[in-house]
Amino acid sequence: MPARSLGELARLVGGDLEGDPTLEIRGFASLESAGPGDLSFVAAGRHLDVARRSAAAALIAPPGLDLGGRPAIRVGQPYAAIAAVLRVFFPEPTLTPGVHPTAYVADSARVSGDATVSAFAVVAERSVVEAGAVLHTHVFVGPDCQVGEGSILHPHVVLRERVAVGRRVIVHPGSVLGADGFGYVFDGQAHRKIPQVGRVVVEDDVEIGANVTVDRATLGETVIGRGTKIDNLVQIGHNTVVGADTIIVAQAGIAGSCRIGRGVVLAGQVGIADHVTVGDGAQIGSQAGVHRDVPAGAGMIGTPAMAGDTGLRALAAISRLPDLLRDVRALGRRMDALERRLGTSEGTVPGG
Amino acid sequence: MPARSLGELARLVGGDLEGDPTLEIRGFASLESAGPGDLSFVAAGRHLDVARRSAAAALIAPPGLDLGGRPAIRVGQPYAAIAAVLRVFFPEPTLTPGVHPTAYVADSARVSGDATVSAFAVVAERSVVEAGAVLHTHVFVGPDCQVGEGSILHPHVVLRERVAVGRRVIVHPGSVLGADGFGYVFDGQAHRKIPQVGRVVVEDDVEIGANVTVDRATLGETVIGRGTKIDNLVQIGHNTVVGADTIIVAQAGIAGSCRIGRGVVLAGQVGIADHVTVGDGAQIGSQAGVHRDVPAGAGMIGTPAMAGDTGLRALAAISRLPDLLRDVRALGRRMDALERRLGTSEGTVPGG
Amino acid sequence: MPARSLGELARLVGGDLEGDPTLEIRGFASLESAGPGDLSFVAAGRHLDVARRSAAAALIAPPGLDLGGRPAIRVGQPYAAIAAVLRVFFPEPTLTPGVHPTAYVADSARVSGDATVSAFAVVAERSVVEAGAVLHTHVFVGPDCQVGEGSILHPHVVLRERVAVGRRVIVHPGSVLGADGFGYVFDGQAHRKIPQVGRVVVEDDVEIGANVTVDRATLGETVIGRGTKIDNLVQIGHNTVVGADTIIVAQAGIAGSCRIGRGVVLAGQVGIADHVTVGDGAQIGSQAGVHRDVPAGAGMIGTPAMAGDTGLRALAAISRLPDLLRDVRALGRRMDALERRLGTSEGTVPGG
Repeated sequence: MPARSLGELARLVGGDLEGDPTLEIRGFASLESAGPGDLSFVAAGRHLDVARRSAAAALIAPPGLDLGGRPAIRVGQPYAAIAAVLRVFFPEPTLTPGVHPTAYVADSARVSGDATVSAFAVVAERSVVEAGAVLHTHVFVGPDCQVGEGSILHPHVVLRERVAVGRRVIVHPGSVLGADGFGYVFDGQAHRKIPQVGRVVVEDDVEIGANVTVDRATLGETVIGRGTKIDNLVQIGHNTVVGADTIIVAQAGIAGSCRIGRGVVLAGQVGIADHVTVGDGAQIGSQAGVHRDVPAGAGMIGTPAMAGDTGLRALAAISRLPDLLRDVRALGRRMDALERRLGTSEGTVPGG
Repeated sequence: MPARSLGELARLVGGDLEGDPTLEIRGFASLESAGPGDLSFVAAGRHLDVARRSAAAALIAPPGLDLGGRPAIRVGQPYAAIAAVLRVFFPEPTLTPGVHPTAYVADSARVSGDATVSAFAVVAERSVVEAGAVLHTHVFVGPDCQVGEGSILHPHVVLRERVAVGRRVIVHPGSVLGADGFGYVFDGQAHRKIPQVGRVVVEDDVEIGANVTVDRATLGETVIGRGTKIDNLVQIGHNTVVGADTIIVAQAGIAGSCRIGRGVVLAGQVGIADHVTVGDGAQIGSQAGVHRDVPAGAGMIGTPAMAGDTGLRALAAISRLPDLLRDVRALGRRMDALERRLGTSEGTVPGG
Repeated sequence: MPARSLGELARLVGGDLEGDPTLEIRGFASLESAGPGDLSFVAAGRHLDVARRSAAAALIAPPGLDLGGRPAIRVGQPYAAIAAVLRVFFPEPTLTPGVHPTAYVADSARVSGDATVSAFAVVAERSVVEAGAVLHTHVFVGPDCQVGEGSILHPHVVLRERVAVGRRVIVHPGSVLGADGFGYVFDGQAHRKIPQVGRVVVEDDVEIGANVTVDRATLGETVIGRGTKIDNLVQIGHNTVVGADTIIVAQAGIAGSCRIGRGVVLAGQVGIADHVTVGDGAQIGSQAGVHRDVPAGAGMIGTPAMAGDTGLRALAAISRLPDLLRDVRALGRRMDALERRLGTSEGTVPGG
């Protein structure tokens, strides 16, 4: 790793320097594992104890946090500063542009001169790979696809035919874009396949995790909106449109023909039924099952999904159900006794 | 796309023509996106408004739906007709049969002359690939496998040893058939692996989605029955037998040694515990968790799974739990008051 | 399959022989499918009926189980004996060590002479593959990785850069170790990626199923502890540390920065939220959602997760909720009537 002075790093992240600008920083690590030459970070007061014990040479920290005079770079947005510094000490691996001799590129495909096509990658007929794009090993780009400028398809990514990937998109290993949507008609004898002839469009600055599946539309397009980030093992059904800047956490599944807004958060293992609309900025809690439209800005949890406030209390109340059943039975018995004594009984024992 | 006359298309799908048989149709699209040369479809009355605004030249529709005199093909089963028409305007990509020069086929393997083995695909020792079968790029067919007539293994599908795939089977990218079942014995010191020496059998006309896993049996066979359709990211455990014509939606998981009947529907994210039997025609709602046998024809929802009617009301009632707890406490207090007044108290405050 | 005498097999598994030691055994099968030359097994008394009807020539069984004089090998741990016998009749496929001519190994990589690198596998810069390790077809071992002695990476496994895999590890097809963790900061305009520069460490004797994803740490390490077994389609988030000898069943997901103890069991489709600690020996039931720390040895079920005893009764009580609501309404009405009659009403109808 290249060494840098603390002053240089402060300038790089636009922060205020506290301490010796010539202090040499040789790496970046978490508070617990930082050594005496490392820069580290503390983002919130509750980590100050750990920070005090850390061997780090200097800290990135928000203004106002009392570091006891330790060398520091003060920034309003520590995480953005951390991201910048990480790239200094852990630069992206450099790749040599060009087509690896073992790759297979169809004659009718067009690969930019400064794109990278790695070992055993395939670019099929009429597909276009733009400048700076990287196809890692064993990537399959099917016929009539586009891979935009600077996009990275990690090893074993599959794009089936007519998938369009925008600029600066990252797709992690093993993800499949453009497999057939799940559409059949039962004709009384068998499930007959409805041809899935639409496509998948992934807009600019999207990131897609590992082993994700995004199905092609029956007709038209399945769309992943600009800047949206998708975690591992997520399923996106055919004809679903996901808006911009949305977050979809691991193992969530969205069925077909959904409309997911912009700035939405779907937590881990969420399920969204088909044809559901989730409004802009809605937040769906982990493992929730959503079968009805969700208004913009709503928070939902549970299965079936409930509004956040009610939902939290309702789910917490489940553990009290056995006591509740017992209490209602007891109340029923006391009611029976009172009614008998007063000579008026409806003759039923609720919950009995 | 090839143009066709409306009359030709009506004959193709066996429908009744309304309007000019020479009307030229140049494509097929949804109501919203159809242009003036396109055929589209309307399957139910609730879409008539959209149909009225559509620019489509003609519509596929069931008999009796009032289209206001618009050119139409009337059919009893619109979806079957749509499937047929889609294949006219969006024909399957044609492949040149033969073994790609970069593919690797073991000497002892047998690949039919009109099968297709694409770039970087591997067919291992003693495996057989029948007529018309297609192995897309990077497919791995392990030793002693069979791939039946007309079956399609999409890019990056893996068959480990001794997997038998029937005829007209489709497996989407990244799916793995025949990985070891999850079987260990803890001997007091470590989890010892039980060798998984059985195999996987996929019967005719099955379709398997992307990144699915079907484990090989410990001994004997894991079976996917004829005509069954499996969506993306589904897990099928070792020794499980799935019947014919069953539907398994995305991210559902079936543990080992289950018996799933024919014509069953498992919705998205369902979990079936090991050794469970699900009877023919049963329908399990999304995210349900099934730990006991399900009778034929039953509908189940929730975790633990409940019969559909009860289950729907029970799950809906969860959101009312906080109110219910409050009400029962109030009843307890009123009961206490009454009993005190009447000089008879059991001395407990239910729910208090 | 090679034939063995019953006496030989008894010695192999260290069991007590009952019957003719020269009895020839030609295979091993389950009770139902065993033929007259096969050895089979019965592990518990409830399977004795099936055992009686089995055509098997001899049985592996625990001491004391009454087999009616049938030839048998008596062992205290039938499953361990079965595992040993399975390997006799179903030996591991033998591989010829060496680098396949179609594989690509970087000049700076080091592959042991008796390791196996199969067709179209890639070993990138500076990676090390130790003695007896097997990289199956289409495996990608990224830069600066280690694959320990005797480890097996099945077809299409991906190790991104700096992943360390210990000895005797098995990774099933399509699994991805070292994809970027899911880390972003929203800066008011877009989700900015936090570089994920840590790594993944897989300790000795781990087994990882098919299409699993284990993300690299942001900084530091994501760790899978010695002897832990992970089923298919599991997600392990960045910086999570899983202890030794833990079992993680299919489709479970663990978010980032978790600490999972040793000897833990996470059943199928479990979800663990980020930063949660699960103590040694804890058992989490299928589909449970865990948002808080779990003490060592605890059993938890449900979402949100409840202690096992309470949880079982609570989840079972959900199906009685509709009746409970009705009962409480009825109690309210009876209370109203009584209070009216006695001239004292609080004027509310609970649950009404």
